[in-house]
Amino acid sequence: MPKLAPLKGNMLIAQSGGPTAVINQTLVGAVLEARKHPEIQKVYGAMHGIQGILDEVFLDLGKETPANLERVANTPSSALGSVRKKPTAEDCAAIFEVLRKHNIRYFFYIGGNDSAETTHIIHEHARKAKYDFRCFHLCKTIDNDLRQNDHTPGFGSAAKFVASAFMGDNQDNRALGGVKINIIMGRHAGFLTAASALARVYPDDGPHLIYLPERPFSMDGFCADVKAVMEKTGRCVIAVSEGICDESGTPIIAAHSKEVDSHGNLQLSGNGALGDLLADELKARTGIKRVRADTFGYLQRSFPGLVSETDAKEARKVGEHGVRYAVKDFENGSIAIQRKKTKSYAVSFERVPLKSVAKETRHMPASYINKAGNDVTKAFIDYVKPIVGTLPAMGRLKGA
Amino acid sequence: MPKLAPLKGNMLIAQSGGPTAVINQTLVGAVLEARKHPEIQKVYGAMHGIQGILDEVFLDLGKETPANLERVANTPSSALGSVRKKPTAEDCAAIFEVLRKHNIRYFFYIGGNDSAETTHIIHEHARKAKYDFRCFHLCKTIDNDLRQNDHTPGFGSAAKFVASAFMGDNQDNRALGGVKINIIMGRHAGFLTAASALARVYPDDGPHLIYLPERPFSMDGFCADVKAVMEKTGRCVIAVSEGICDESGTPIIAAHSKEVDSHGNLQLSGNGALGDLLADELKARTGIKRVRADTFGYLQRSFPGLVSETDAKEARKVGEHGVRYAVKDFENGSIAIQRKKTKSYAVSFERVPLKSVAKETRHMPASYINKAGNDVTKAFIDYVKPIVGTLPAMGRLKGA
Repeated sequence: MPKLAPLKGNMLIAQSGGPTAVINQTLVGAVLEARKHPEIQKVYGAMHGIQGILDEVFLDLGKETPANLERVANTPSSALGSVRKKPTAEDCAAIFEVLRKHNIRYFFYIGGNDSAETTHIIHEHARKAKYDFRCFHLCKTIDNDLRQNDHTPGFGSAAKFVASAFMGDNQDNRALGGVKINIIMGRHAGFLTAASALARVYPDDGPHLIYLPERPFSMDGFCADVKAVMEKTGRCVIAVSEGICDESGTPIIAAHSKEVDSHGNLQLSGNGALGDLLADELKARTGIKRVRADTFGYLQRSFPGLVSETDAKEARKVGEHGVRYAVKDFENGSIAIQRKKTKSYAVSFERVPLKSVAKETRHMPASYINKAGNDVTKAFIDYVKPIVGTLPAMGRLKGA
Repeated sequence: MPKLAPLKGNMLIAQSGGPTAVINQTLVGAVLEARKHPEIQKVYGAMHGIQGILDEVFLDLGKETPANLERVANTPSSALGSVRKKPTAEDCAAIFEVLRKHNIRYFFYIGGNDSAETTHIIHEHARKAKYDFRCFHLCKTIDNDLRQNDHTPGFGSAAKFVASAFMGDNQDNRALGGVKINIIMGRHAGFLTAASALARVYPDDGPHLIYLPERPFSMDGFCADVKAVMEKTGRCVIAVSEGICDESGTPIIAAHSKEVDSHGNLQLSGNGALGDLLADELKARTGIKRVRADTFGYLQRSFPGLVSETDAKEARKVGEHGVRYAVKDFENGSIAIQRKKTKSYAVSFERVPLKSVAKETRHMPASYINKAGNDVTKAFIDYVKPIVGTLPAMGRLKGA
């Protein structure tokens, strides 16, 4: 492994994109690790990602006590604020003026693949400007869709929320019957929706059907699937990914939402349109009377007091390893969680090239999805279980 | 207190209406208490409320081990299944045939005010038929809208979910800004929506506005309120009760949902229509760009692993006290939770007449709502805090 010459200077860290329940673990991991390395002098946090760099809105994180940092680590959502902004060439030039001015030599950007791309652009610009610094992307996303990663910080806790919610909702549906549709976050990758399968304890437990963005969604097929489940069990709990598309790749929700962000992404979350659309179509086409739809929405990514312990620990380590790699081994990169091929669950925290994580998303592998495209496989359950950890126990009366 | 002559016979218990996170605590409390009284012979559970009596679908709860009953007590939603059915005079006649046939002398119906009414009708029919039995309603409802009760089992846990969700969502909104509207269950009573106020830890924390069914909702007033908060803080988190109505008493959602149940109640939950309507109106009228709406939906009433300890204990005691009153003191009634006028929080479990709980709902008293009708008062916070109990700790960076 390469060893870099010591580089003295200040550190800047920021958070970007959608918050998660453990994104502050990564922040605090990096900040506490930085205190162990004398090369790193001042430790600043930029508010609201690159926007805070452009506006020079910095916090001096050296003033934080370890006790308060631990409280922040256990608080969901981005403590430094977040942003959804793709920097222009002009922005980048301005960013370097600020970096130089504050002698920032260590830069850490916590985010998803859009943020990895931003980090890559900043790094490229620095290289051209021959500005000597270390530039790292620290992974996070509840979507679990970053390439190079076995899974990403934030996913395990969001998956625990989704699985827990389905456990309770399955009991609710058992009590009152009918069809219940739940819309789960996930634009291109179905991992979070698929995690609903962990809610199954008894053989007849829901979710009975799972629809993912990785497979084309047909309204006819959906209605036929639900009718078949209803005929068999008299009730049906369904997990649907917000990003489901038809055969042509058009999102099912596209007719109802036109809002896009600066990365060109269509607004999927923050409304109940997809659930209502599916419920209305199902009622109209099948005549089933009791059809309800809930959209889990933002609760999935920042619900407090419900983290996966594994997720929280790993998120902390991503921050720690980022600083270690930056101080001693590499000028840039992204910290990826990779699973060891051991019998019991174990991971390592590897440095991978920024470009290998940026832009493109990772999808559910085919081996995780059943043939009919309406459920997951045992291979997926084996994959996801250790990431999510313990779930609530469910009891049932004999014969009920 | 009157003492009744011993009445030997079997017991039947059932659950009705919307499930809660602790409704099985009441069931298990009653079942375990019944084992202490030799007057009560067989203990049956009817599946799906009075529907299960009509269809004679009974479980023999004497076969349940205490360990399995404890597992069931800690499982959300109605373990015996539920029903939304108002019995006709014909149904009542049929119900008594079944009761006589199985020598049921103790009947317990766990539910809200609709269920109290059903219990009252069954009791009236029994009285006319001179059938000797003990008939009790055991309170539950997340809406907290039963008369005679300081609060009802299920409310505390649902309120804990709502307050927790707002704590996380407030952090999410701090990170990315804009307006976030959250729709909370509550047809006529705003207690659950009002409990969102417990999420406030720091002075600028949301919810910044709270709209309840007890005050008329005006779209103009709403938009003006939100604009004022946005101008002050640059972000706005809003709690809205699903049952909000305009000046004429027409639900705001009425234009979008026409489905009614057998009690004549309009379907409010199980869709995202109200949130989407408010978000669209707000965007159109104020020009605010980032407006998101989530509808918490069924997660509020049956989320596992997140109960209020106080709520769980009290729900258990409602079941226990019901059986005790039925065996020794009264022929019928409803078990009500009443708060003692002591300095520290304490309650008693009183028997009140069935009629005094049935049909009509209890509303938020005026002293719990601010003058502008868009927030709660300190009196409400003092009232609700001990019912909900401990909430997650929230941390914040200095100066963030």
